[in-house]
Amino acid sequence: MEPKQFKVAVVGATGAVGNLMVRVLEERSFPVGELKLLASARSVGKTLPFRGADMPVEELTEDSFEGVQVALFSAGGSVSRKFAPVAAGAGAVVIDNSSAFRMDPEVPLVVPEVNPQAAFSHKGIIANPNCSTIQMVVALKPIQDAVGISRIVVTTFQAVSGTGKRAIEELRLQVSDIVNGREPKREVYPHQIAFNCLPQIGPFLDSGFTEEEMKMVNETRKIFDDPEIRVCATTVRVPVFYGHSESVNIETRKPLSPEEARRLLEGAPGVKVVDRPAVSVYPMPIDAAGTDDTFVGRIRRDPSVENGLAMWVVADNIRKGAASNAVQIAETLLDGGRL
Amino acid sequence: MEPKQFKVAVVGATGAVGNLMVRVLEERSFPVGELKLLASARSVGKTLPFRGADMPVEELTEDSFEGVQVALFSAGGSVSRKFAPVAAGAGAVVIDNSSAFRMDPEVPLVVPEVNPQAAFSHKGIIANPNCSTIQMVVALKPIQDAVGISRIVVTTFQAVSGTGKRAIEELRLQVSDIVNGREPKREVYPHQIAFNCLPQIGPFLDSGFTEEEMKMVNETRKIFDDPEIRVCATTVRVPVFYGHSESVNIETRKPLSPEEARRLLEGAPGVKVVDRPAVSVYPMPIDAAGTDDTFVGRIRRDPSVENGLAMWVVADNIRKGAASNAVQIAETLLDGGRL
Repeated sequence: MEPKQFKVAVVGATGAVGNLMVRVLEERSFPVGELKLLASARSVGKTLPFRGADMPVEELTEDSFEGVQVALFSAGGSVSRKFAPVAAGAGAVVIDNSSAFRMDPEVPLVVPEVNPQAAFSHKGIIANPNCSTIQMVVALKPIQDAVGISRIVVTTFQAVSGTGKRAIEELRLQVSDIVNGREPKREVYPHQIAFNCLPQIGPFLDSGFTEEEMKMVNETRKIFDDPEIRVCATTVRVPVFYGHSESVNIETRKPLSPEEARRLLEGAPGVKVVDRPAVSVYPMPIDAAGTDDTFVGRIRRDPSVENGLAMWVVADNIRKGAASNAVQIAETLLDGGRL
Repeated sequence: MEPKQFKVAVVGATGAVGNLMVRVLEERSFPVGELKLLASARSVGKTLPFRGADMPVEELTEDSFEGVQVALFSAGGSVSRKFAPVAAGAGAVVIDNSSAFRMDPEVPLVVPEVNPQAAFSHKGIIANPNCSTIQMVVALKPIQDAVGISRIVVTTFQAVSGTGKRAIEELRLQVSDIVNGREPKREVYPHQIAFNCLPQIGPFLDSGFTEEEMKMVNETRKIFDDPEIRVCATTVRVPVFYGHSESVNIETRKPLSPEEARRLLEGAPGVKVVDRPAVSVYPMPIDAAGTDDTFVGRIRRDPSVENGLAMWVVADNIRKGAASNAVQIAETLLDGGRL
C-alpha cells in the first residue's frame, strides 16, 4: 500500500513564518502529495522552492481550499478570522499561527510535547500558541507534571524575526547605518531597535501589560489546563535576528532540586539541556537558530523563595515558536490517525 | 573667601570609566584645584582633555598620592587592593569603583540618593557599588522606605560598555563583520555578542549564580542595611553599547498600588519616571545614555503574588552605574563638610 499523501495549503506563504512552514514540511518529510501556496494578490507571480521545484504562489480566495486536508495559516489575525472557517468548512484541518482563535474554548491550543491529546478534539481549527509561550511550556512541562508549578515570573529577550521580514531588514539597516555613522531610520518599531531594548511587544492594555505578556499568562493556563497557575511576564524586544531567550523564575507546589529538574528536563521531549556554566556553556539564540529544540540551561535554585527554581530557556522563535510547532501539530494528527 | 579647591586623582584614567570620571568632574563642576591622571606605565605619554587643557597621564606609583585629597579608582580589583590603602594612608579619601572592598564591613558602600550618611563613616576608603545594583536601589529606595520590600526578582539587559573599551570595539567590529558577510571575531567575550544574548556576566560560582548576580544580592542588602531582603538575579549581556535595563518584580511588606509607587518615584532623587505606555513612552538604553538619572517605567501591579509590583529600570551603566556615582559620593562628602 502506498503511504497516504495529503493536499496541504500554506496561507501567508511569502511571510517569514509561512516561508519557513514550506521548508519545515520538506525538512521533516511531511507526506505532502500536493502543495498550495496562498498569499495576497500582490504576491502572485512569486515562487517558493519545494523539493527542488519552484512552486507558484496563488491568490488566497474563498475557493482556495477545495480538497485541501491540512491548511497551515500564518497571515495575521484578520486573514485567519475570515478564511480559517472557510478552509475548515471545505474539510481541511486548519492549524492557525495567528492569535485569532487561541483563547476560543472550542479551539484546542496545542504544543505537541505538552498537550498532544488536545489536538484530537478539534472542530476544524487548531491554534498554534504564541512563540514566547511555546518554548516556556515545553521547558516547564516535565516540572509541572512532576511537582506542579504555582507561579512563573518570566522576562523575555525576543528576536526581531518574530515581527516579520521587514523587522529583520530594519535591524540590519539600522546597525549598518549606525556603524557607518549614518542616522538610522525606523518604520516597523516605534523606536530604534539596533543597540537598544524595547520593553514593548504588541499593544498595551489598561493594566499596564502588553498583549504579548497576557498571551504568556492566558495561553500557559490553557495549554497546561491549569487555571490556577499564576504568571507575570515582561516581554522585551532585543537586537537579535533569530531566537527568543527567557529568564524564568518558578515556584513549585512541592520541592524539586535543581539536579532533579535537570534530570527531568534531560528526559523531556523537544528539550535539550545545555548547562555547563563552569565552561561558559548555556543556551544562546545564535545556537538555537535553525533548530526545532527548546534549550534549557542555568538551572539553579532560586533561594529567594520556598521551592524556587530559576532557568534560562532559548528556542528559535519562528521554527519551534511558529512554523515547526505548526507542522508538528499536523504530524500529531497524522500519527494519531486523525488525518 | 575663595571657595575651597581640591587635589583630585583619577586612577585608571585611560579606561572607559576613568576617562568618564574626568569628564564628569568637569561637567558637574567639582572644585578640582589640581588633577592627577594616573594609569599604568604604558599609558604615559597620553593626555586627556580637562577644562580645555590637555592633561598628561602619569604612571601610578606608591608616591602618586602626595597631597591628594580625593582619589577616584577605576583600574580593577588588583590595582585597588594594592594602591587604595596607599592613597588612604597618604590622607586621600578613596572612592573605589572596583569590587575589592565593597563587602568589607569597614568600608561604606554608597549610593548618594540611597544611603548618603554611610559615606561619613569611612576610614579612608568608600566603595562604589556595582552598576546593575546602583540603578536598582535608586529605583527601589522610595518603595523600601514607604512599605518595605521583602523580595526582588530581577533580570538584567547589560550593555557591553560595562566590560570596557575593548568590548565596545568588539561589538562594533562584530556587527560590521556580520552585516558585511564576514565571520565575526571574538576576544573579549566567550561567545559572539552581536545579535546574541549571553546569560553570563563574570565567573560562575558553585551555586550556579554568577559573581555579578551575587553582587546584586549582597550589595542591595548592604546598601539598604536590610539583611532580610531576598534577591534573585539573572544577569545577561546584550548587544547594546551604553545603558543597562532591568526587569524588576518586587514583593512589598505592605500593599502599595502602582499609582502610589509612581507618585513616590516621581518625588525621588535621581529618578525620572518615564511611563506613558499608551504612546510607547518607557525607559530605553539609547535614551538613558549620557545622563546621570535612573529611568523607571512600566510600573504595574504584578497580579501573580500578593503585594506584587513590576517595573523596568534603565540607567547609563558607566555614568550613574560608575563614574557619576563616584563623583556624587565626593560631592556628598563635600556638601557634608567632610572634605
